Amino acid sequence: MDIADSSSDVIAKRPKSSRNDDDYFRSYADLAVHEEMLRDTVRTNAYRIAILGCCDQIAGKVVADIGAGTGILSCFCVQAGAKKVYAIEASGIVHRAAEVVKSNNMEDKIEIIRGRVEEVELPENVDVIVSEWMGYFLLYESMLGSVIYARDKWLKDTGILLPNTASIYMAPLTCQEYGEECTGSSNEQTDAVLVDTVEMQVKFWESMKQSYGVDMSCIAGYAKQNFLSRVHLGTISPQYLLSHPCKVLEIDIKSITQTDLNKLTGNFKFQCFGNANIYGFAGWFSVSFPCMKDVKISTSPLSHPTHWQQCILYIESPTRVEQDTVIEGNASFMQNKTMGRFLDVSLQYSVGEKNHGIRHFTLDDLCIS
Amino acid sequence: MDIADSSSDVIAKRPKSSRNDDDYFRSYADLAVHEEMLRDTVRTNAYRIAILGCCDQIAGKVVADIGAGTGILSCFCVQAGAKKVYAIEASGIVHRAAEVVKSNNMEDKIEIIRGRVEEVELPENVDVIVSEWMGYFLLYESMLGSVIYARDKWLKDTGILLPNTASIYMAPLTCQEYGEECTGSSNEQTDAVLVDTVEMQVKFWESMKQSYGVDMSCIAGYAKQNFLSRVHLGTISPQYLLSHPCKVLEIDIKSITQTDLNKLTGNFKFQCFGNANIYGFAGWFSVSFPCMKDVKISTSPLSHPTHWQQCILYIESPTRVEQDTVIEGNASFMQNKTMGRFLDVSLQYSVGEKNHGIRHFTLDDLCIS
Repeated sequence: MDIADSSSDVIAKRPKSSRNDDDYFRSYADLAVHEEMLRDTVRTNAYRIAILGCCDQIAGKVVADIGAGTGILSCFCVQAGAKKVYAIEASGIVHRAAEVVKSNNMEDKIEIIRGRVEEVELPENVDVIVSEWMGYFLLYESMLGSVIYARDKWLKDTGILLPNTASIYMAPLTCQEYGEECTGSSNEQTDAVLVDTVEMQVKFWESMKQSYGVDMSCIAGYAKQNFLSRVHLGTISPQYLLSHPCKVLEIDIKSITQTDLNKLTGNFKFQCFGNANIYGFAGWFSVSFPCMKDVKISTSPLSHPTHWQQCILYIESPTRVEQDTVIEGNASFMQNKTMGRFLDVSLQYSVGEKNHGIRHFTLDDLCIS
Repeated sequence: MDIADSSSDVIAKRPKSSRNDDDYFRSYADLAVHEEMLRDTVRTNAYRIAILGCCDQIAGKVVADIGAGTGILSCFCVQAGAKKVYAIEASGIVHRAAEVVKSNNMEDKIEIIRGRVEEVELPENVDVIVSEWMGYFLLYESMLGSVIYARDKWLKDTGILLPNTASIYMAPLTCQEYGEECTGSSNEQTDAVLVDTVEMQVKFWESMKQSYGVDMSCIAGYAKQNFLSRVHLGTISPQYLLSHPCKVLEIDIKSITQTDLNKLTGNFKFQCFGNANIYGFAGWFSVSFPCMKDVKISTSPLSHPTHWQQCILYIESPTRVEQDTVIEGNASFMQNKTMGRFLDVSLQYSVGEKNHGIRHFTLDDLCIS
């Protein structure tokens, strides 16, 4: 099948020797990313049910799939009765998508268009926009901007978006303290807040003198600041949450503007469950869909784990709270100014009467690996 | 302390706003890499013992530390009595090294020089070159070329190199077959050959029809070829080795030339332990040191695990062998032509009477993450 193309960078049309290496290697990386997303059954099943459940609004209609990847959401739309699906995808994975469309005999319904959303043209407006645009902490490397662009350009006034709402949640976190019995547990990797990892960073560099006879404690402060300036990813056990979660932000995908997206800010207020030390805050998101009100993707520590995991914002030093202590403040989310796909998060909060000022975090490539 | 500088790219001298972002983010990444290397006690203790054990040859002498990192090997050399150490390092980690040198009161002995080995100058020739230059499968992103350059330019005829020998080993591998009781084990990540991962790749794409109602089996072949074209990293349990290991290559660091390094080839011959299927070959390396003949770093599946893990070269389809079946052939190691830090490995082998032709593998960034 033919792939409509608005990009100057198409692997299939170029001889092997002149392939762009970045693209060549990235196409392998892409496949691994899509495999991870398809293995995430919470994510993929939610889209499947939401799309099939919207068949009344999709049957006989025109759909745009923004960032179509392997094309699976486009196939779901055809299964829901879509008359036509424009599957827009910028990366080399379009070649796999084309094979999938052909294998499922949907070539007459799905038109794959290779290119960036902002650079392609569609021959008609659409009734439905479907997109899996969410990144870590909702907004890291997120394609929400592209969805807004597509909505403003192609979506009919009566059209629908899947998903149509996205929310960010937070909650204060406690953890096992460094030195308690679980220290050094092999669960360190999977259970990110099992022990006080900030203190573990410091202890590691201080231990070099003992381990190897060379004093490296001078690196501890630098490593600690490095650690504290980053958003960490991990799967958080619910017992570490110190209060009910608070919805910090709710985004209506139908009405949010690019300007809104430049800086999203929301408030939180937590009432602590009991006496403990706070080591930081957990953050996660959910999205929901029209038609199927009870179908949503939640990446909460209280829900089934997803590939998005949860985010952890560590604070400088443990802060004591008691039953009913109130933690309140606000969180802002912005694109990193120098690296657009990175996410900057600012946190301003008080614990009881004490104002803890403002703290800044970045979610960048290093947080992911 | 001052850092002698031959690089135009020094973070400390530039105002924050004009920082090169790549360098800025990389300096954090560097720290994580060095932390991982320092946590590898097999590696760091071997260097410590080898250097202190060479004190007769180091005391009162001049040393070059090639790719000094946090400066720990330079400190070991001073502890072994070195008169002077030139610690050459290209990355931003030099600022941490400078702090370490100061903390250990070695500023009069260690001179940190920021820059690429090929671009810096030393005021004198050296008696000793110490370097931890080894990458995955010995040669991935390896700095052996820089060590050769430094040796030819600065090392006195009577000088010594630490390490002075490096060897690559291989052995045929069997594994648990897909569908046997351990399938889907949570050990999948850490024990890379627990199950037939090639077959798992294929089954995954074939299962999409069942899971989500979309036929994606067309991707299976592509995913399989992608998987088979890559060198995989993992920690291999010794019970999966199907013969005694064979030393494929031995490199004398004192005499190897840049020309030799362009293509290294060695032969192997294995005699199988029993009746089983071969799924591929394991590869690893060791390095040894002068003076301390019994000190070496071995990354074998039979030794204590290191951060280098082992490499796995999967073959197209399982091949049956019996007790004493002979597998022989040769392996070649070359820099990837388009991406210099990637490693290409070619394997030519026969199993019993049957010639299996030549297979090509690449060890690239995707293999690491």
